[in-house]
Amino acid sequence: MTEKFDLATVYVSDAQYNRNIFFGTSPQAVRLYLLYNHLFMQTLVYVFIIINLALALFEDPAVVPLPIWATSTIEIICLSAFTVRMVHYAKVIPRDKFWKDPKNICIIVIVTLSFIDLTIYGALKATGYFAIRWSRVLRPLLLVNVTEGRQLRRAFRSIRNALPQISYVFLLFMFSVLVFSLMALKLFGKRGLLTIDGSPYFTDYLDIVFDLYVLVTTANSPDVMMPAYNYSVFFTIFFILYIVINTYTFMSFFLAVVYNNYKKYLKEEVRQLVKARRFKMCRAFSLLRETCGEGGEPVVTQAKWNHLVKLVKPNISIAHQELLWSVLDDQNKGHIGKFAFVQLADLLSIQVITVKSQPHPIQICFPSMYNSSVSRFIRNVVHHRMFVYVYDLIILVNAVFIGLDEENPVVSNAEWDFVLYAGGYTSRQILDIVFILRVLRLIRLVDSIKRFRAIINTLIKIGPTILTFSQLIVVYYIFAMVGMELFKGKVQFFEPNSTSPDQEYCGNPLLKGTTFAKLNYCKNNFNNVVSSFIVLLELTVVNQWHDILYKYRSKLIKGLLLFYFPGSRTVDGLLQRMFETDLRTEDFNEEEEPENISFSNPAFDSV
Amino acid sequence: MTEKFDLATVYVSDAQYNRNIFFGTSPQAVRLYLLYNHLFMQTLVYVFIIINLALALFEDPAVVPLPIWATSTIEIICLSAFTVRMVHYAKVIPRDKFWKDPKNICIIVIVTLSFIDLTIYGALKATGYFAIRWSRVLRPLLLVNVTEGRQLRRAFRSIRNALPQISYVFLLFMFSVLVFSLMALKLFGKRGLLTIDGSPYFTDYLDIVFDLYVLVTTANSPDVMMPAYNYSVFFTIFFILYIVINTYTFMSFFLAVVYNNYKKYLKEEVRQLVKARRFKMCRAFSLLRETCGEGGEPVVTQAKWNHLVKLVKPNISIAHQELLWSVLDDQNKGHIGKFAFVQLADLLSIQVITVKSQPHPIQICFPSMYNSSVSRFIRNVVHHRMFVYVYDLIILVNAVFIGLDEENPVVSNAEWDFVLYAGGYTSRQILDIVFILRVLRLIRLVDSIKRFRAIINTLIKIGPTILTFSQLIVVYYIFAMVGMELFKGKVQFFEPNSTSPDQEYCGNPLLKGTTFAKLNYCKNNFNNVVSSFIVLLELTVVNQWHDILYKYRSKLIKGLLLFYFPGSRTVDGLLQRMFETDLRTEDFNEEEEPENISFSNPAFDSV
Repeated sequence: MTEKFDLATVYVSDAQYNRNIFFGTSPQAVRLYLLYNHLFMQTLVYVFIIINLALALFEDPAVVPLPIWATSTIEIICLSAFTVRMVHYAKVIPRDKFWKDPKNICIIVIVTLSFIDLTIYGALKATGYFAIRWSRVLRPLLLVNVTEGRQLRRAFRSIRNALPQISYVFLLFMFSVLVFSLMALKLFGKRGLLTIDGSPYFTDYLDIVFDLYVLVTTANSPDVMMPAYNYSVFFTIFFILYIVINTYTFMSFFLAVVYNNYKKYLKEEVRQLVKARRFKMCRAFSLLRETCGEGGEPVVTQAKWNHLVKLVKPNISIAHQELLWSVLDDQNKGHIGKFAFVQLADLLSIQVITVKSQPHPIQICFPSMYNSSVSRFIRNVVHHRMFVYVYDLIILVNAVFIGLDEENPVVSNAEWDFVLYAGGYTSRQILDIVFILRVLRLIRLVDSIKRFRAIINTLIKIGPTILTFSQLIVVYYIFAMVGMELFKGKVQFFEPNSTSPDQEYCGNPLLKGTTFAKLNYCKNNFNNVVSSFIVLLELTVVNQWHDILYKYRSKLIKGLLLFYFPGSRTVDGLLQRMFETDLRTEDFNEEEEPENISFSNPAFDSV
Repeated sequence: MTEKFDLATVYVSDAQYNRNIFFGTSPQAVRLYLLYNHLFMQTLVYVFIIINLALALFEDPAVVPLPIWATSTIEIICLSAFTVRMVHYAKVIPRDKFWKDPKNICIIVIVTLSFIDLTIYGALKATGYFAIRWSRVLRPLLLVNVTEGRQLRRAFRSIRNALPQISYVFLLFMFSVLVFSLMALKLFGKRGLLTIDGSPYFTDYLDIVFDLYVLVTTANSPDVMMPAYNYSVFFTIFFILYIVINTYTFMSFFLAVVYNNYKKYLKEEVRQLVKARRFKMCRAFSLLRETCGEGGEPVVTQAKWNHLVKLVKPNISIAHQELLWSVLDDQNKGHIGKFAFVQLADLLSIQVITVKSQPHPIQICFPSMYNSSVSRFIRNVVHHRMFVYVYDLIILVNAVFIGLDEENPVVSNAEWDFVLYAGGYTSRQILDIVFILRVLRLIRLVDSIKRFRAIINTLIKIGPTILTFSQLIVVYYIFAMVGMELFKGKVQFFEPNSTSPDQEYCGNPLLKGTTFAKLNYCKNNFNNVVSSFIVLLELTVVNQWHDILYKYRSKLIKGLLLFYFPGSRTVDGLLQRMFETDLRTEDFNEEEEPENISFSNPAFDSV
């Protein structure tokens, strides 16, 4: 009977956490499976993945250089941990299932390739040859293929499924850009116009395509138009038409298609998930059922159910447990059927908040003092509306003073002296933190206004979904790795007080006289993993991206770039839709009937 | 009886076109009302409005200068036309209703103020004094307040109603910007950092607020970050946090709130509209009803109904009329009740397409030739798939040649010579048009691919809605008028071959050494209505807006600008939603079941 309960427990918690692993039903197999899913083991896997990813900080080109033997040892430990985990997994599920799963193949290939790369790199470096750590690009893929990366895989799968339909719109968009470029070549090519740099304007077809593509991102507006505009006002019609058609119409259309398709596929994923969950709950039911009901239909008794719930959620309170039972057995029969039992996994996911009216500590220790008339007066004052307003006003005045401080050298210097003297610290970092904390006090002000709190609550509610999506940042890691191998050391940053003549062109003669050097973008380089990430983030923000990438302008790379912008716009568009989904009118307007204006959207339900 | 029919006709067509005018029911009043709604009269009003708006092209500062007496005469004619129209309207509706309607008051005030302004301006100019044509700002308001501007008023009303709820999010967003600016002041103010221009970095609070506000629009990214980044890599954390919170989270949230609220209010507007339409149809029914049905319920006979439909839509075909009747009277009783009658207005709006199988003209004239074996072979070839492909290939090759032409001087010059010689025209404009037409031939290519055609059809379907919204461009007109009065002549454009020393700073010493002058933005000025519109469009595209407005940077104007960016982002966001609404999956994927994934959205239904 215990074995049956153990197995039922596993089915229920699998359903609860949407695990979808096929495991043997023998007691040993179940015990191995429980160990595999233990929170400690899962945490350990993530710790090793993070260590493995973080190695980029210490490997050449490093932020904090460590010797090769040290980074290699750490990597070997990580890879061994992944191997052990994989062996464990292979013992849990049947052999044929194991080899049919592409996730497992993927992890084995990545670990093997990493070992090979490590060996070759070590050998080459030891003998003084040039070597590339190419396997680092594969590291983020571990995060996706590990058993726990279900949500990430689901997001990737939905994106991949939506791709074919998106591609048609993208092709039409590119066609439009190409046709407009041809028109531009015909219109402006022969006029001998010059750009602001003095180079010929719109004479090379591929350059025109690139410039007009950048115009879709609005990054070179209105500079790209100015030479033609200066020549004749009629040429602005060309650019206005281009912006209306490509920047506004096509890009909006593109985003609408991306969103609709993504939603469609995610809906399908969720449908599959619900089906799998019901199936597992049915298996758990068939393990525990008895045929004692009327008409001989199978049921589960309250005793068994209680035992099961205790096993699934050991720290559940009796009150919570009884609440759940009363929800399922609403007719108080003492047993429930299949239909009610299947809902258990969903019920366990619902957070139950128990509100207790806790007395104030002073009331417990000194009841006479707490109930005195003076104390009662103070309590009334504190709870009064005016008190809240006055308190907020004080914070606001404080804010103004923080701002004015800077103007007044006495206050300003006193503040610095105080912090410097007080702790004996001379570090400026401490001072920075103190300043920031002082300013953050202002947030209290917002929290005290009801409507603002409603907005902030909505923002917080959407937080977990954003966090899931933010895992997509692994894509940045891959780009950072490739960028570092291709471009490390190509652009140098010189300290402001450096006297090197190379400073003017970031140490690369190719950058002489470019906007990149003029705007002092030297620190936007791929010389280590941190600056690579910052460059990639700057590119996500889009503005000036054509200037940032000036150093890498070649026809091939220009071609590849065509796919970057729609991606970064998509991030923006998806965020908006997420908020729309979670916005309900009643949050903003209490007089309103609680009608749900926002449309139902399964894309971001907590699945 | 005829009078009753006339009145019923007016009610039905009012319901059909969503007119909501209270008019007298006497035969004369009805005839006046019909004249007021006559298509010719409505067209005339729009012609006068457009002429009135277009006057800005000829008035000082003019694109094509005309003498004051000429523009004044035209304006007086326009204003007189509006007055006549107003008098006509006053005769149609009861006096008390007329004076209660703010639209009428608004038009009377605008016309009166325009007359006064015109008189003052004429008098001052005649005596050689300085004068401002301030009433020009009011001109676009005529377009909004005229009886036919219902859709525009509905859009404005929805925006206005949504404002209070939007403002809370905007306030919270501004609070966040202010707090971040305070942090920036504390973090960077005392470090003595310099910007790329050599000016102090982040030392003045209001300048920081402006710079960080520009960062929300991404227009000065990453420049605003570079001095801090060059100082220490840790300061990028501040900017990354800022971008994530304000640019991505808050702006997305803001747009979501705008969209949801706008949708809510437009839904309410549509509900009102449907109610009014039903009310009018009921009045028409009560004019024509007879009590001949079973149970004595009122009905309308087919004969009366036919007569009414002929009056409402004189050019309706018998077949169409019979089709409509058979839809309403599905049990073939010969009369319909109130419920069916009320649907007439909706039915008349539905387009009925009559498909006729028309024979080929050659088949009619020369049947023997058309059916000969040679002709049949040609027809088969033309209808064959391969033929279409070959034809497309030819167009594509043609496109490549158009592109390559430029490389080959013989072809290129031959082309120029040909066009120059052929028509005897030496004008380059003709040449431009020929070039563009040649390139536009490529569009045929896209139209022949089924999936692309589906996308284009969707784009076309949304066209009318976009046109309605594009009327909001009247807002630009107001800004252009204000901008011209404030800034005309402040920035001068010099022809490229000019030798004036003022050329370097656009003729304004205040612009010496600014980015505005460096980027040669001199033509971005408010010196006439066309260049004003181009500047405003450039600002809508957002990029470089802070540089374009450099010349107008003062604390006051900075403050006003805070409201400009959310507006321009909203345009973008609304466009996307419009496409989402009209996107149906079946347009893209024929294997799919015709399930409607796109949510129902009343905002852009043709109301």
